[in-house]
Amino acid sequence: MTYNKENIFAKIIKGKADCVKILENDYILSFMDVMPQTPGHTLLIPKYDTEDIFNLPEEYFTFLMDAKKRIARAIKKAYEPTGVMIMQLNGKEAGQTVFHLHFHIIPRKDGLNYKFHSSDPVNFNELEKEAEKIKKWL
Amino acid sequence: MTYNKENIFAKIIKGKADCVKILENDYILSFMDVMPQTPGHTLLIPKYDTEDIFNLPEEYFTFLMDAKKRIARAIKKAYEPTGVMIMQLNGKEAGQTVFHLHFHIIPRKDGLNYKFHSSDPVNFNELEKEAEKIKKWL
Repeated sequence: MTYNKENIFAKIIKGKADCVKILENDYILSFMDVMPQTPGHTLLIPKYDTEDIFNLPEEYFTFLMDAKKRIARAIKKAYEPTGVMIMQLNGKEAGQTVFHLHFHIIPRKDGLNYKFHSSDPVNFNELEKEAEKIKKWL
Repeated sequence: MTYNKENIFAKIIKGKADCVKILENDYILSFMDVMPQTPGHTLLIPKYDTEDIFNLPEEYFTFLMDAKKRIARAIKKAYEPTGVMIMQLNGKEAGQTVFHLHFHIIPRKDGLNYKFHSSDPVNFNELEKEAEKIKKWL
């Protein structure tokens, strides 16, 4: 599959689509998932055109891991969940729905019964409130 | 929770418990999951005493990401799945069962219907066969 430059995350990186930001630098961008499984469901993406992890250049590695750790820790502080799940899906059949590499960082209080995306988007005002809770701990 | 030095992954790192290895260096160790969700289910751990990602030192970041990418790519070649899932669970309620930080790298052909660990261990001979398929592509 060829990377599609018009995917929603590519547009977000270019500022052509809105998002509620959590963290950003030259290499990565983190923002709230608009179809959260649970409040606090955050996404992390590299600013690099790739749909999956298979060809990601090394210069992004440290920035991604560092952001994952900071966000996971902030989510733990903000929501006091019993767990934090980090997940990255490569390919449609693994559950990937947007074809720009992304990591899900999700507070979990509900045991093992894992749901994929909810089907209804949450409005940006609600996402802003969740983002504020997390950013305070970054 | 205090890190328990007697957990099974700590023993594997110290060579006090067996595993079927995929990849190893001074910072990381990768081996086959003995209760695989699907053939090829691989684990990746840092050689550092921590139960979760929240306090992982930065020197492990690049080694972990690099290994994840290499293993995911090798699994893609070895099994030709439609997808590869990478998952890391922090905390019992997020589904973590061994309390040493670990990443699951799982070939997926079966759509979204995600199962957690199977309940029966697979014997080492079978795991060796799967490991050989993956190592060929690392």
